[in-house]
Amino acid sequence: MARKTIEDLFVHELSDMYSAEKQITKALPRMARAATNPLLADAFTAHLEETQGQIERIDQLVELAGLKLKRMKCVAMEGLVEESKELMEEIDKGPVLDAGLIGAAQKVEHYEIASYGTLIAMAKHIGLKVAAIQLLKDTLTEEKSIDEKLTKIAEQGGNQAATMNS
Amino acid sequence: MARKTIEDLFVHELSDMYSAEKQITKALPRMARAATNPLLADAFTAHLEETQGQIERIDQLVELAGLKLKRMKCVAMEGLVEESKELMEEIDKGPVLDAGLIGAAQKVEHYEIASYGTLIAMAKHIGLKVAAIQLLKDTLTEEKSIDEKLTKIAEQGGNQAATMNS
Repeated sequence: MARKTIEDLFVHELSDMYSAEKQITKALPRMARAATNPLLADAFTAHLEETQGQIERIDQLVELAGLKLKRMKCVAMEGLVEESKELMEEIDKGPVLDAGLIGAAQKVEHYEIASYGTLIAMAKHIGLKVAAIQLLKDTLTEEKSIDEKLTKIAEQGGNQAATMNS
Repeated sequence: MARKTIEDLFVHELSDMYSAEKQITKALPRMARAATNPLLADAFTAHLEETQGQIERIDQLVELAGLKLKRMKCVAMEGLVEESKELMEEIDKGPVLDAGLIGAAQKVEHYEIASYGTLIAMAKHIGLKVAAIQLLKDTLTEEKSIDEKLTKIAEQGGNQAATMNS
């Protein structure tokens, strides 16, 4: 577990994200089934495919840079996924659960945005190849894009919910 | 714990952030002491003051909107703060620990950015007063600003660390 150099930190952070992405692939199908708004269900299903691609990018990066990932569980992602499970247990299907799931998913996305941002900064410092850094950048772009998509669905779906409540 | 309406969700999320902010006020002084780069130590100290102001804004919002917060512990923030503690235990003071602390702090900031974004969207849907929504927006602006500040420090400090390693 020693993290003495920026490279050690990078490997630790990347291993953490590998675990986080795997956890997300398990959570997304459940979230898609729980969503009522078809746009939201579709967004979760599409992001599942993206997430599988992101895991493959980490595999490629490990290969390219000759790294060895650590077996670990991302505890922060465990807590974030737990939050979405609680919502699904406590709230009936409908616009309120949809609003809650969007909020929970955006926290997950922001965890990833912060983490890939950190990984890119560290990758530059330890002098990783441009192609390796590009893999991280591609994933960061996808994470930002799904976050924006969720904000748009929240604005549309929220107005819908407000209308339903009025 | 029932969350049947968007207003219930809003109160739950706001109570979660109240707990999160309180936890951050306890973590920041430790992080400031552990930082070697004086710019980073100053950023943590300045953000401690900001965080205290953010807690006061939640108090004002509760007053303005006539809400009642729930006593709860934000488990996700507990995990994020735990990550920074582990770093401080495992890594000696210096540029590597600084890089790790910046990464940990940015995850905290992004958790807050996602959460305040969700709160603002929900506040609009339940028709909170403009003044109440503005309190959330002011905090969101501060969170984004500290995130950018940390990115700049990482870029400068990281280059310093890279030079020291070479």
